[in-house]
Amino acid sequence: MNRSPWTQARRAARMNPSIIREILKVTEKPGVLSMAGGLPSADTFPVEAIQAACDRVLSHQSKEALQYAASEGYAPLREWVAQRVGALGLKATPDQVLITSGSQQGLDLVGKLLCDAGAPVAVETPTYLGALQAFTPYEPLFASLASDDQGPLPSAIEALPHDAPGTRFSYLLPNYQNPTGRVMSQARREAVMEASRRAGVPVVEDNPYGDLWFDQPPPQSLSALWPEGSLYLGSFSKVLTPGFRLGYIVAPSEIYPKLLQAKQAADLHTPGFNQRVVHEVIKDGFLDTHVPRIRALYKANRDAMADALRQHLPQGCDWQSPEGGMFFWIRLPEGLDAMALLPRAVDAGVAYVPGAAFYAHQPDPRTLRLSFVTLTPALIREGVEKLGRVLHEALAMAEAPTP
Amino acid sequence: MNRSPWTQARRAARMNPSIIREILKVTEKPGVLSMAGGLPSADTFPVEAIQAACDRVLSHQSKEALQYAASEGYAPLREWVAQRVGALGLKATPDQVLITSGSQQGLDLVGKLLCDAGAPVAVETPTYLGALQAFTPYEPLFASLASDDQGPLPSAIEALPHDAPGTRFSYLLPNYQNPTGRVMSQARREAVMEASRRAGVPVVEDNPYGDLWFDQPPPQSLSALWPEGSLYLGSFSKVLTPGFRLGYIVAPSEIYPKLLQAKQAADLHTPGFNQRVVHEVIKDGFLDTHVPRIRALYKANRDAMADALRQHLPQGCDWQSPEGGMFFWIRLPEGLDAMALLPRAVDAGVAYVPGAAFYAHQPDPRTLRLSFVTLTPALIREGVEKLGRVLHEALAMAEAPTP
Repeated sequence: MNRSPWTQARRAARMNPSIIREILKVTEKPGVLSMAGGLPSADTFPVEAIQAACDRVLSHQSKEALQYAASEGYAPLREWVAQRVGALGLKATPDQVLITSGSQQGLDLVGKLLCDAGAPVAVETPTYLGALQAFTPYEPLFASLASDDQGPLPSAIEALPHDAPGTRFSYLLPNYQNPTGRVMSQARREAVMEASRRAGVPVVEDNPYGDLWFDQPPPQSLSALWPEGSLYLGSFSKVLTPGFRLGYIVAPSEIYPKLLQAKQAADLHTPGFNQRVVHEVIKDGFLDTHVPRIRALYKANRDAMADALRQHLPQGCDWQSPEGGMFFWIRLPEGLDAMALLPRAVDAGVAYVPGAAFYAHQPDPRTLRLSFVTLTPALIREGVEKLGRVLHEALAMAEAPTP
Repeated sequence: MNRSPWTQARRAARMNPSIIREILKVTEKPGVLSMAGGLPSADTFPVEAIQAACDRVLSHQSKEALQYAASEGYAPLREWVAQRVGALGLKATPDQVLITSGSQQGLDLVGKLLCDAGAPVAVETPTYLGALQAFTPYEPLFASLASDDQGPLPSAIEALPHDAPGTRFSYLLPNYQNPTGRVMSQARREAVMEASRRAGVPVVEDNPYGDLWFDQPPPQSLSALWPEGSLYLGSFSKVLTPGFRLGYIVAPSEIYPKLLQAKQAADLHTPGFNQRVVHEVIKDGFLDTHVPRIRALYKANRDAMADALRQHLPQGCDWQSPEGGMFFWIRLPEGLDAMALLPRAVDAGVAYVPGAAFYAHQPDPRTLRLSFVTLTPALIREGVEKLGRVLHEALAMAEAPTP
């Protein structure tokens, strides 16, 4: 054989080991206090409730739970989701709910169905890295929406290209956005959705963090403002466990059958066992007491990180304290580069994600993301102190005259 | 809004509710003896072993099992798979094993990575419907390989187009193929793989049924004959439970990192809980006693169906008794159309899958697939008797002079 038989395909040729994957590997060194990954606190996993539910499912529904199942998902879980999103103002029937293998799969199905090579897809500036990864194989032309601390500007949505091939959709995270932690106000939501409707550009609303509010719930779901033009993605990863990989899409009836076909082609169905166990855990109001516990825990962590940042970060660093979710978004003083500093931070025993990974275009090299949900408050303080030391040193070096 | 915002994308516009999905819905009517779906017998699900394993995982590994996990899969399960395929003659390290959400997801990842719009992908005639569904969204140009009762002809592989864009891969099921039940002899395997290597066309080997042999194990894995040019797909669905959605890909080191990236974009990772539970069940040789029980059960079912077919099907029907797997493939006498007859069969209380669904091109309308693993021998006999009655009536009508 003279040449590799694998390199003909365009996508295979284009795909190279992801830079961010390589970065995150570095952060996994033993002894490093990692605030990089968005891993929920393991203390929030309801182990006993899950154990009891596994027992009940295997004792009473084993033949159904262990057999092939419908691609749409487990009917009682779909009903539960329809009620849940109804409480957020999004009216939907169970027939509009598709259970997915985590909401990451929801993003993949959206990409598979709606992206065409070279057609624009609008994203926030910055946006969730995993969405860029999910859409990229379908070769969209990303359009970065001009954004402020409330999210994308309505004017940027109005300015999206309509000419063929036409903007396929905007991907928006209204609540405690990953990576910035920002939340869209009610007025911004209304303006963004009105602009989307006028432009005829559908909205893919991703809401993994909406339940993690600290003082007051976020405003209305975007999809509630234009249901027939919106897809809504939800997840059980942040309120129950990520290890079951359970999410959902709520879709208008017009697009649902096509999403369902894409789902069937992708993995036939999400594990029926996992769907039944989760339904068994949540069906009688478990989340009504469980989620407030998570909120209280994360709020205390947020406070610990806010205090530590004020105490240890050098002047010229900029951030806002998030009102929910999992992340602080930090902007370093001029002259510092978060990507370049990461190896030094890891050597000093602390890790973050450089913000550059979250931009579809022109990254801001001074940004970085810190998660406050994985470590305890004491370790958060220790990690931020170490980070502060690295930044102070880097600033001193940047300001020293070059010999 | 004057027009739908959803219909711009090419794939969305092309996707219509799948015919086969609609057909299979018909077969799910209550009271119908369905030999349509390839559902493993629920009697083979090791409920107690799974229950004990769930308990152990949640008692001892709950934080890891319920957290986000590596996209590659759970390391001890990857080691187990590497040993398992080694026993089939395919040498592989755990680093070459990617755990997937069922082997259907393996097909989707293969399509995502290796298909380009308009580039040929070779499939058997007929082939697994789910593979056609998985590859289709990536818009390959299917090439149907001329095939006989041993599978594809080596000459057909040699004749595949090499000119740009070049044939991307051949998708082959060597063992108890879905839908035909056929198995490739050792000589055919060698000739097919030699032809593939000469043509420089990689092979995607799908082996969900290889463990389900009745009298003797199937010959060597195709991938063992050209490891650097083959991807091997395996599954726990047929030997343990489909409801956990666990499969795997064994890939050459050259292509593995790209598959891993596609996996990460698709759903981050397969549920860690499910991987740990399955590993807990199988790690000490459970399958060595469990799989022979499945073989014995399915062999008895195969015998019951073979007897019933001989007794009840009209002359002119043609089939071979499969040496393993889950399916009989029947060819009806001239003048009968399996798709057209399905509604009558369902009215008579029996269901099958029309063979037409399994062809990339020019279906043979006289073919149909019967599964013998879902129903008991008594119900198989009853179902085949009903089917025989429908076919006898249809033949009588076809032969009657039109008034």
